[in-house]
Amino acid sequence: MQTRRSFLHTSGLAALGATLTPSALAQATHNQRVVLASRPAGKPTLENFRLEKRAIPELEDGQVLMKTLYLSLDPYMRGRMNAGASYADRVELDSVMVVGTISRIEQSRNPNFTPGQVVMSYSGWQQYEVSNGQGVSPLDPRIQPPSYGLGVLGMPGLTAYVGLLDIGQPKPGETVVLAASTGAVGSVVGQIAKIKGCRVVGIAGAKEKLDYAVNVLGYDDCISHRDPDMAKKLAAACPDGIDVYFENVGGSSWEAVMPLLNNHARVPVCGLIAHYNQTELPPGPDRMSMLQAMILTRRIKMQGFIISDHYNRVGDFVTDVGTWLAQGKIKYREDMVDGLENAPEAFLGLFRGANFGKLVVNVGA
Amino acid sequence: MQTRRSFLHTSGLAALGATLTPSALAQATHNQRVVLASRPAGKPTLENFRLEKRAIPELEDGQVLMKTLYLSLDPYMRGRMNAGASYADRVELDSVMVVGTISRIEQSRNPNFTPGQVVMSYSGWQQYEVSNGQGVSPLDPRIQPPSYGLGVLGMPGLTAYVGLLDIGQPKPGETVVLAASTGAVGSVVGQIAKIKGCRVVGIAGAKEKLDYAVNVLGYDDCISHRDPDMAKKLAAACPDGIDVYFENVGGSSWEAVMPLLNNHARVPVCGLIAHYNQTELPPGPDRMSMLQAMILTRRIKMQGFIISDHYNRVGDFVTDVGTWLAQGKIKYREDMVDGLENAPEAFLGLFRGANFGKLVVNVGA
Repeated sequence: MQTRRSFLHTSGLAALGATLTPSALAQATHNQRVVLASRPAGKPTLENFRLEKRAIPELEDGQVLMKTLYLSLDPYMRGRMNAGASYADRVELDSVMVVGTISRIEQSRNPNFTPGQVVMSYSGWQQYEVSNGQGVSPLDPRIQPPSYGLGVLGMPGLTAYVGLLDIGQPKPGETVVLAASTGAVGSVVGQIAKIKGCRVVGIAGAKEKLDYAVNVLGYDDCISHRDPDMAKKLAAACPDGIDVYFENVGGSSWEAVMPLLNNHARVPVCGLIAHYNQTELPPGPDRMSMLQAMILTRRIKMQGFIISDHYNRVGDFVTDVGTWLAQGKIKYREDMVDGLENAPEAFLGLFRGANFGKLVVNVGA
Repeated sequence: MQTRRSFLHTSGLAALGATLTPSALAQATHNQRVVLASRPAGKPTLENFRLEKRAIPELEDGQVLMKTLYLSLDPYMRGRMNAGASYADRVELDSVMVVGTISRIEQSRNPNFTPGQVVMSYSGWQQYEVSNGQGVSPLDPRIQPPSYGLGVLGMPGLTAYVGLLDIGQPKPGETVVLAASTGAVGSVVGQIAKIKGCRVVGIAGAKEKLDYAVNVLGYDDCISHRDPDMAKKLAAACPDGIDVYFENVGGSSWEAVMPLLNNHARVPVCGLIAHYNQTELPPGPDRMSMLQAMILTRRIKMQGFIISDHYNRVGDFVTDVGTWLAQGKIKYREDMVDGLENAPEAFLGLFRGANFGKLVVNVGA
């Protein structure tokens, strides 16, 4: 069994310049890592992963040795496990599962990095990585605790910020609906929408998440997708229809949302977790033309986005969301799992909504 | 048989202030009109329409009597014939088919209008209309001949202008694809895209339209949707993929376009003529989720629009398109049908691509 600790923080900004101190200097000789053992057909299982131990090589000139403090588990990684084209680069068989990490420089033969420095990296599911420094950048020292750099002040937070504000363009008084509404991205979307003066209706699964959405995140309502009357309840919670639907789920949430979309609704499409394990299209009739007709007649804007296209917004994002966090206007919850060996099981849990808050693995902090 | 005359004009701007002179003053006593006799199930037929004769009532204070010079026939009118909700208001049974007209004031008891004035109106499929002046506006005198106010310098032209420039946002060197590409809207879309420095590939039916698209409108290529190898030929004509697809057709054109859409492609959805006569959804599998996934992974923007939401762009539109017409950079072709009694048959022809250019009925000019 994995250890699971949930933290709820109401402020994530520490004094400028705070950093972690280097850890025990006892030199590690071996690296544990999790590789992709086989490609899943549909739903991934534990058998798709393999834990390995490898010797850590000597550093060459220009290289750094990084220790993984935290790694992020996100739904988009499912796509990288497929052989076919995906919107993110695929992971090769017998290679480390790639994902963003917060890491610390342990040794450096690269003039751009010093031991003890905390960095953002894509080291993936492993304890150590030897790198030439490409794609490694110092963590903004305002991001405290550092694990927030994988969540509210990292890629998921930026995804929420860009998707809602730049594509969704919510106006005060409009109704914003989002599914997975207590997750890493959803919780930031919903709280920013409240800050912008919108009516916010979430969709989530478990009772404790529904309560959390209303009582802690401040949503106006939150509907369970497990409720057989979901469509009816969502309609009742949105008496003026839906102006922005932040799509990160697809499936039954989308089915319930569709009839409620107002003229001129905006649908930023950020993810479709309900479809990721789908191996074939559902049976007919073919409703593609129905969606086209709906987009036409209701003048809907549906727009997909991938956050790596929007890094130019990082500056505004850290300033705005950092300020809202410090002011207590954005609340943030981490679902922290201890130990690299528990990453596969925790990852599988994402697809049944087992996590509550941003899923992070503490690898070596 | 209807009389059909096709006109190709290369310039539509006349001297400012030019107007038509009032016609014969012999007072008409009766109005011929075409009403919706029954609602079509699927494809409309001549039986859905009825030609009637009605006495013209005496004018009351505030009213005008207008004579219809030209009426416009457009695919969107098919939606108005349905009982169900549509993006345009539906036509009631036994009521006149509503559509934009160029009309002339014959009598006026309204201080805003004078006999002889040429106006834009929604008089519909009839020779005369008595109106209180609502929705009636003077035709911009720069629009010559006046029938251009139903086409390149009217609603279809504005639709092309807004859809391509504001939603499609083509950049020089990008590839723009459009279906119905010699029609009222398409021909303006394609020519503006050329003016903006894009590679333009049209889709059309008949051989003479393909030739016209390349030789007269200046497209880089034009593919026939009747060609069994359409998908392959479209791919060959778009070696760098498709950046903007101006969607006014749906159906097989959309099927051929989908695999070629580039990352960040824009799809302004203006019409879906191939679906308008559809009475049920096609058989499965259900590809709605495939479309959602494509929008996500390729970061596509798909946006419906209706031109009545964009009348704030009329000023820029008349200036720009008027200038391009005068410079010969936009060429325009009318498909003129003589006589109100021929309107139903000409309208049905729209759905089998029988028209060549903007379809206009000369009712009383």
